[in-house]
Amino acid sequence: MSYVVNRRDLEFILFDMLDLESLLQADRYAQFDRATITQVLDLAQSIAEDHYLPSAGALDANEPKFVDGKVDILPDVAVALRTFADAGFFAASFDEAEGGLQLPYSVTLLLSGMFTCANLGIANYSFLTMAAAAMLSHVGSDAQKQHYLKPMLEGRWFGTMCLSETQAGSSLSDIRTRADPLGEGRYAITGSKMWISGGDHDLSENIVHMVLARVAGAPPGVKGISLFIVPKFRVREDGTLGDRNDVSLAGLNHKMGHRGTTNCLLNFGEAGACEGWLVGEPHQGLAAMFHMMNEARISVGMGSVMSGLAGYLYSLDYARTRTQGRLPGDKDPTTAPVPIIDHADIRRMLLNQKVAVEGGLALCAFCALLVDQQGIADTAKDREDIGLLLELLTPIAKSWPSEHCLEANKDAIQILGGYGYTREYPVERFYRDNRLNHIHEGTYAIHGIDLLGRKVRLRQGAAVDLLIARMEATMHRARSAGILVEEATALANAIATLRQTTRAVVASDDLRLGLANATLYLDGFGTVVLSWIWLWQALVALDAADPETSDFCAGKVSACRYIFRYMLPHALEQLRLVATLDDTCLAMRADAFVTT
Amino acid sequence: MSYVVNRRDLEFILFDMLDLESLLQADRYAQFDRATITQVLDLAQSIAEDHYLPSAGALDANEPKFVDGKVDILPDVAVALRTFADAGFFAASFDEAEGGLQLPYSVTLLLSGMFTCANLGIANYSFLTMAAAAMLSHVGSDAQKQHYLKPMLEGRWFGTMCLSETQAGSSLSDIRTRADPLGEGRYAITGSKMWISGGDHDLSENIVHMVLARVAGAPPGVKGISLFIVPKFRVREDGTLGDRNDVSLAGLNHKMGHRGTTNCLLNFGEAGACEGWLVGEPHQGLAAMFHMMNEARISVGMGSVMSGLAGYLYSLDYARTRTQGRLPGDKDPTTAPVPIIDHADIRRMLLNQKVAVEGGLALCAFCALLVDQQGIADTAKDREDIGLLLELLTPIAKSWPSEHCLEANKDAIQILGGYGYTREYPVERFYRDNRLNHIHEGTYAIHGIDLLGRKVRLRQGAAVDLLIARMEATMHRARSAGILVEEATALANAIATLRQTTRAVVASDDLRLGLANATLYLDGFGTVVLSWIWLWQALVALDAADPETSDFCAGKVSACRYIFRYMLPHALEQLRLVATLDDTCLAMRADAFVTT
Repeated sequence: MSYVVNRRDLEFILFDMLDLESLLQADRYAQFDRATITQVLDLAQSIAEDHYLPSAGALDANEPKFVDGKVDILPDVAVALRTFADAGFFAASFDEAEGGLQLPYSVTLLLSGMFTCANLGIANYSFLTMAAAAMLSHVGSDAQKQHYLKPMLEGRWFGTMCLSETQAGSSLSDIRTRADPLGEGRYAITGSKMWISGGDHDLSENIVHMVLARVAGAPPGVKGISLFIVPKFRVREDGTLGDRNDVSLAGLNHKMGHRGTTNCLLNFGEAGACEGWLVGEPHQGLAAMFHMMNEARISVGMGSVMSGLAGYLYSLDYARTRTQGRLPGDKDPTTAPVPIIDHADIRRMLLNQKVAVEGGLALCAFCALLVDQQGIADTAKDREDIGLLLELLTPIAKSWPSEHCLEANKDAIQILGGYGYTREYPVERFYRDNRLNHIHEGTYAIHGIDLLGRKVRLRQGAAVDLLIARMEATMHRARSAGILVEEATALANAIATLRQTTRAVVASDDLRLGLANATLYLDGFGTVVLSWIWLWQALVALDAADPETSDFCAGKVSACRYIFRYMLPHALEQLRLVATLDDTCLAMRADAFVTT
Repeated sequence: MSYVVNRRDLEFILFDMLDLESLLQADRYAQFDRATITQVLDLAQSIAEDHYLPSAGALDANEPKFVDGKVDILPDVAVALRTFADAGFFAASFDEAEGGLQLPYSVTLLLSGMFTCANLGIANYSFLTMAAAAMLSHVGSDAQKQHYLKPMLEGRWFGTMCLSETQAGSSLSDIRTRADPLGEGRYAITGSKMWISGGDHDLSENIVHMVLARVAGAPPGVKGISLFIVPKFRVREDGTLGDRNDVSLAGLNHKMGHRGTTNCLLNFGEAGACEGWLVGEPHQGLAAMFHMMNEARISVGMGSVMSGLAGYLYSLDYARTRTQGRLPGDKDPTTAPVPIIDHADIRRMLLNQKVAVEGGLALCAFCALLVDQQGIADTAKDREDIGLLLELLTPIAKSWPSEHCLEANKDAIQILGGYGYTREYPVERFYRDNRLNHIHEGTYAIHGIDLLGRKVRLRQGAAVDLLIARMEATMHRARSAGILVEEATALANAIATLRQTTRAVVASDDLRLGLANATLYLDGFGTVVLSWIWLWQALVALDAADPETSDFCAGKVSACRYIFRYMLPHALEQLRLVATLDDTCLAMRADAFVTT
């Protein structure tokens, strides 16, 4: 069993559930078919297993250190990233014209997932670089692309995203870093940026920081934010590296998890000599970020799923081989202890993990497919509809796995018992790693407000209608085939509850009260979506297999049943509570929590 | 605001809710009144704040090391424990005749909690010693007490509990450590013990290991387990220390949390020279352990509550002072950011913590009071009834906080955002510490099986009846006063669901199926109990305060409303599912999780 991927499931999701081969009919993907995609996945798996997985524990235990103003990192990291680069994976989704492989995003997302699952401390460097490069590819000038894009796609230069500041993590409108024009698109950058992953290291020849800052005199708030390229080393006209730019490492953050990746406080222009280059128009920085926002968020959801998968695979393997105890009713101590997977509660915890991980993977892959379909849509109407659905599902794809795959990691620890709680086994690391995902790329609460305050209101609820139409199609398919009818009926009830709750909140004229329970709405909505995803998966599995003989199919059907029986009722309770516009939390007085 | 205790709440629970002063009327506690108890709590608080709290972060970051066969520990640990000993706290609950303070257990539990909250890495050493001493006090011979008890109660010798082995963590019936008689109660001990907290160190003059082992020829299973005293240094007839016994440190475990306490693999008799002394009768080791089981389990629940409290206090303080963002609808970026406690979701996360922590504290304190009441009961019937209630509530007091106060710690991290995820702030440490509590002293699943398989069946459900009678009394009190009527009605419904579910499972003749969802039963039952505890607290708070002016009272009422609206409905869904005897988990085939 591989510890970096569940290939059978990955291929089921891509080819059986999402019908990737239909997408591959598009001109853009003419060079690919199932066989070539499989080869790419094989290559990724072998690199992840051979170069990423072995050092994951050591990298966590030996986090990068700040020594003499420089960052000291285990040498395995550079080797792994070089192998990744040599395979062309930095450029996986980019156009052939830019030197990319032009793979669908749905494939690169799942391919990337193997590296996250194997060793996210290393994988982070490449993903940040790919995100920065994608932004440049979208909004950079030709000259900027010429200078920066090629070395980034070759994995020789890395990239970062510099948004947050110490006083402004969630609230971008309050950033203070400033940019003073020096002419010809060049600016003097001054300020500090916090939480910069990959912010400094010697792994690459250069680091390209994508920095949000305010041009002097810009309007307040997010409408006055501009985007700049700020390289660690300046780049000469001929593309070679010039002087060190005035970007300095002020300190490393020491996190609970994600320890393999440097995370920095960076000072820009401390010596008054930091140069940045405006990307796109002034004050359009946030728009440039939003180009990338859905993909960035889907990839955080995918990160949660992959930490979840790592724990699921490990704890499953352990449960199959570790023996302990006897079954209820068996009191004879001279009989042999059973493999712990025979205990019902161990199976429950494995099912709970399976539902979160395989469901989360299917949702993230579906969202990625929407990105691909949006890119090749024939009509503006199609593009718009796909875009609406993607806007609605993105906060869920980002958030639901961050909660439920973290809980999956909690189960993995529990299955290993005392051993799981030690650093001699990897499952506690996955749990520590995964805890970040509620926080970055928009907190859980912020995505709740985004979903309930904005997304469900887009075009009078058009996005919700589009989603429900898809859910109903799956439901009807189950009913007309006469299979999983109990689940189809439960989904119909869930849709009704979701509609009622959404209507009740949108109809309220008290915005603060309406949004007071938005986090519960996000979580409940997410579980309804995942229930649908599971019904969809189970139907496809039943179609594709002989159910009498297929373990795979039996597993999908059991997991489907599990989410409907063990999780959906709770989600409906959450949605019903949201519909009442309950003010218990909103009305709680700050002084009433603890009094002296 | 103290970071080691919420004194206002602690005194509310002890004096207003549990009416400790009634207990103090008993002869056993004649030397105490509210004023003297308050002095003891003051002393504990000041020691915890001054000697435990300051080194908590450093101790986590510098865990004990195994150097040249010895354990190297930060010097603050010994100083703190010496101060604790000097205050007489090692002997807090012991009889005056034994040199103890003879405090009620309900007081010592809450007093001990301050040390756990401040620095559990240090506190663990003392609690293990007190537990080992209590066992000796219960079942040791006079000679054993004379030799070992006094130095333990003076905090000069520490104690451990040696139960688990590498192949037998949950399943005590499979332990292999053996004891061969040498005559006169002396035995040669051979074997290894795993997960021994405080198993080796130089903090005390001696370490008294309480070891479970099998005498050669003993019956198989738990009926063949005996209890032994195995000191690190042998003790001469005159009580002075003799030779080193053959107990050796084979290795330290490196845990996710609880890093301040050594946790060891110990070898006994590797050189064939480990001597142990039988405690009590042969093959009665488990019975000796069971003497202490309820208290040990309540104190694990209390440990969860205290890690939860540490995060609650810290995140509350942070939320009151950290500013970020604006309220929904306020789009003017030139206005000042608000304290984050003004955001509804921050209040939700604080309420969620308050409910878990203050509710868990009240439940643990109530269980401790039952222990005290059992000890001074006038009649055998009273003693038996209190005992039954205690048997029923113990798995809940141990388990419910381990889940819900861990989730509280997750909320504390979320409130601090990116900062909360770093080791520069303490909240991630509390989360790591708390994760142990699902596992040790009986896993979550094992307590579920204990509750549903054994406790609710005791004397035809007499324990459940006793509990429900208490709940109904609270409910009637609310109804007759006409306050919190919605909650009282919800509690009545919850009791009905609990009864139905229990009846459905007990009536099943398929034990494995009946117990397949025992973990859900435990969690759901727990939330029903906590809902009752909260209704009780809210009623007492409303009685004791002028509700118009009291922040304290408003906080209790809001938290009561929160558990009834935000948590209880989920618990009832869990109980309803358990009642269906659902076999989704039990029937899941081991091969169907992941297939290749």
